[in-house]
Amino acid sequence: MYSVSVRDHFMIAHSFAGEVFGTAQRLHGATYVVDVEFRRPDLDPDGIVVDIGRATETLRAVLTSLNYRNLDEEATFKGQNTTTEVLARTVFDRLVEAIRRGDLGPGGRAVESLRVTLHESHVASAAFDAPVIHH
Amino acid sequence: MYSVSVRDHFMIAHSFAGEVFGTAQRLHGATYVVDVEFRRPDLDPDGIVVDIGRATETLRAVLTSLNYRNLDEEATFKGQNTTTEVLARTVFDRLVEAIRRGDLGPGGRAVESLRVTLHESHVASAAFDAPVIHH
Amino acid sequence: MYSVSVRDHFMIAHSFAGEVFGTAQRLHGATYVVDVEFRRPDLDPDGIVVDIGRATETLRAVLTSLNYRNLDEEATFKGQNTTTEVLARTVFDRLVEAIRRGDLGPGGRAVESLRVTLHESHVASAAFDAPVIHH
Amino acid sequence: MYSVSVRDHFMIAHSFAGEVFGTAQRLHGATYVVDVEFRRPDLDPDGIVVDIGRATETLRAVLTSLNYRNLDEEATFKGQNTTTEVLARTVFDRLVEAIRRGDLGPGGRAVESLRVTLHESHVASAAFDAPVIHH
Amino acid sequence: MYSVSVRDHFMIAHSFAGEVFGTAQRLHGATYVVDVEFRRPDLDPDGIVVDIGRATETLRAVLTSLNYRNLDEEATFKGQNTTTEVLARTVFDRLVEAIRRGDLGPGGRAVESLRVTLHESHVASAAFDAPVIHH
Amino acid sequence: MYSVSVRDHFMIAHSFAGEVFGTAQRLHGATYVVDVEFRRPDLDPDGIVVDIGRATETLRAVLTSLNYRNLDEEATFKGQNTTTEVLARTVFDRLVEAIRRGDLGPGGRAVESLRVTLHESHVASAAFDAPVIHH
Repeated sequence: MYSVSVRDHFMIAHSFAGEVFGTAQRLHGATYVVDVEFRRPDLDPDGIVVDIGRATETLRAVLTSLNYRNLDEEATFKGQNTTTEVLARTVFDRLVEAIRRGDLGPGGRAVESLRVTLHESHVASAAFDAPVIHH
Repeated sequence: MYSVSVRDHFMIAHSFAGEVFGTAQRLHGATYVVDVEFRRPDLDPDGIVVDIGRATETLRAVLTSLNYRNLDEEATFKGQNTTTEVLARTVFDRLVEAIRRGDLGPGGRAVESLRVTLHESHVASAAFDAPVIHH
Repeated sequence: MYSVSVRDHFMIAHSFAGEVFGTAQRLHGATYVVDVEFRRPDLDPDGIVVDIGRATETLRAVLTSLNYRNLDEEATFKGQNTTTEVLARTVFDRLVEAIRRGDLGPGGRAVESLRVTLHESHVASAAFDAPVIHH
Repeated sequence: MYSVSVRDHFMIAHSFAGEVFGTAQRLHGATYVVDVEFRRPDLDPDGIVVDIGRATETLRAVLTSLNYRNLDEEATFKGQNTTTEVLARTVFDRLVEAIRRGDLGPGGRAVESLRVTLHESHVASAAFDAPVIHH
Repeated sequence: MYSVSVRDHFMIAHSFAGEVFGTAQRLHGATYVVDVEFRRPDLDPDGIVVDIGRATETLRAVLTSLNYRNLDEEATFKGQNTTTEVLARTVFDRLVEAIRRGDLGPGGRAVESLRVTLHESHVASAAFDAPVIHH
Repeated sequence: MYSVSVRDHFMIAHSFAGEVFGTAQRLHGATYVVDVEFRRPDLDPDGIVVDIGRATETLRAVLTSLNYRNLDEEATFKGQNTTTEVLARTVFDRLVEAIRRGDLGPGGRAVESLRVTLHESHVASAAFDAPVIHH
C-alpha cells in the first residue's frame, strides 16, 4: 500500500454540551493541525498516489470552509458537539466530496482510503480512518 | 474507525541481559514519551471516543506505577528484559486492566483496540498494537 | 547562562479588531502551546535553575487563568487585541507576579529573565523575552 | 503486534517528467527523513523485535546507497520518476533484500511487514507499507 | 523584546567545492524548512509585531525565488558554496530588501532584527541572526 | 552572527540528593536529546561555521563518554547532582576541550560561543550558553 500525506491547520471557536466536558462547556477555541493520508495499492504512471499540489489545495479549500469561525453558529453542526473526533469526520466527508467532484484529478478515483488526523495540542489528537466509497 | 490519542512520559533506570545489547547491558536509563491511541468504530452520544480528560488521567496513573524507578529491582520484570517493546506491552496491559475496572467511564467498554507507542529518543521507538478483550 | 524550559498549553476563543486581521476579525479560537524558559547565571546548591516541578505547576496555574475562555469577555483584555504577542506578554507578566509571590520557591529570586513562546500552529508563533524585575 | 521504528535521512537531487509536476520538472532536490517500522507478532527471547543497533546500521547502509546523488543519473531509476512514493518503495525493497541476506540477524526472519515513511518537508510525506516475503 | 515567527520550506539541488565536504561535493539536494523570527521592542497599536499574513507571504515570495532550482546554475551564487549558512544569509538579505520595499507594511520599519534558521534534516540546521539596517 | 546546530542523544541512570527532587531521589534514568549550536560572526572561505561532519563526530564522542552509564558511580560527578542543567554544562565543557584539542579542525578556533540544550522529555529541557574561551 502506498500513501501520501499533507498537513495544514485551521482555528475555530466552539463550546461543548454535556457534563463530561467540564470547563470545556464554556465558549473556548482550538487550533487543529490536520494531517491527511491518501492511500492506494498502486502508483499511477507518473509514479504518484495523487498530485501533492492538488491534495494540498483540496485540503486548504476544505479547511477554509471551517477556518476562523464560531462552530456553535454553523448550521451544519446544529445539535452536535464539534469534538475533535467529529471534526475529523467532517474533514473526511468533505474531502470525499471533493474527490468525487474530481478536485484531486483522475488519480483521485484510485484513492481507496483516507486517514484524517486533527492535532489539538502537543499532547492530544483524534483521527477518522475509513475507505473512500466512489460512486 | 475513530481514535483519540494522548501523550505523557516516564523516566526509568534499567539494564539488559544478552550480548545483543552491547553497552546497554550496563545500568543506564531512558525517558519514554508515550502515545496511546484508543479506537472504536462509532462515537458515543456526546461525540467522543472516550473522555480525553479521563484518558489522560488513566495514562498518568499507569505511568506513575513505572516512573522514577530502577526496573531491575521491580518484581514484575524479574527474568525479563525491560526493552521498549516489553514496556509498550506492559503499558498496554495495565491500560486494559484500567478499562476493565471502568477507569475510562462507560465509554471505555466500546474501545476495540489500543496502540501504545514508546519513543525512547528522537530516532527510535517501539509500539504494541492489539484488540482490547472485554470480559 | 543556564536555563530550564517547560511546556504546557491552553485553548481560547477571541476575535480581533482592525482591518489588518481580515477574516480573523470573526470570532474564532486557538490552541497555544506555551514554552517558558527561566534563566539565571549560576545554579543553586542543588544544581538547578528552579525546581522543574514548581515551574510546571506555576505555569499550569497561570494558563488555567486563561484556559477555556472567550477572551473577548475578559475584563483584563478590554479594548485590546489578544494577539499571540499580547498573550505571550500576559503569560510573562503573570509568571513574574508568581515569582514575586514566591511560587517558584527561594530559587525564583535568582531568575534573571524569562522567555515566553506561544505556538499557535505548526507554522507560526510569538514570543516575549525580558528581564525579571524583582522588588 | 509489536513494532520497532528507527529514523535516519538522505539528501538527493532529481527532476520529474510530466506536466503534473509543474516547476518540479526542473532539477531540484530534497532531504528525506526516513522512518522504518519493523513489525512481528511476538518478541524474541531477548524481548525485542529486532536488534535496534542492527536495524539502524541496515537502514544507514541502504540510505548511503542513495545519499548525495543526482538520481536522474542513476541507472536504477531510468525512465521512472523518483517521487517520494517511488523512493519509499525503493528503500522498502532494499531493506527486504538486506533482511534476506541476514543483515538484521536471525530475528530478521520473523519480521512480517515493514512501513517505510519518507518526510520530504514539515508538511508532506509518503509511505510504502507491505508484508515481507521471506524465501 | 517581542517576536513573531513563521515557517515555510524550499527544495533545491547543489554541489559543494572543497575537500571538507567529502561526498557532498557530488550534485545532491536538500529540503530547507525555514523559520524566520521578526523582532521589535514594542507592539504596534493593533497589538502585533508585523502582520503575520504579510510576513508569511513575504517569506513565501523570497523562498519562491530559490525553490525548485539547481543553485549551481544560479548567477547569484557563482564562485560560492551554497551551504546552509550561506543560504540562511541569502534569505535574510532578501527579507531585508522586502522590508525596505514596504512588503511587510508600515510595521516592517519597526523590525529591529531577524533570525533566519534553515533546518536541513531532523539533526542539523544553520542560522543567521542580525539587526535590520533601515535606510 | 552565524550558527550551525547538530543533534544527538544519550541515555543514563542517576538519582538526586535533596528533598526538592521528591520521587526523583530514587534511582531512575533519562534519555537526553542534545542540540549544540556553534556560533561565529563570519564564515570561513568554504562558506561554513564548522565542518558539520566533524561537529557531529565531536558531539558523538562527547556523548559516548556519558552514554549507557549510571552517573551515580562516575567519579566526575561525585557529590554533585547530575541534573539536566549540570549535564548541559558538562557537555559544554567537554566540547570546549575538544575544540581546544583541534577536533573541529582549524575552523573550531573561530567559534565564539556554544549553546548546549538537553531535552529530557517532550515538555522539559535545560541549556547552558556561554562564550568559548580559546587559549
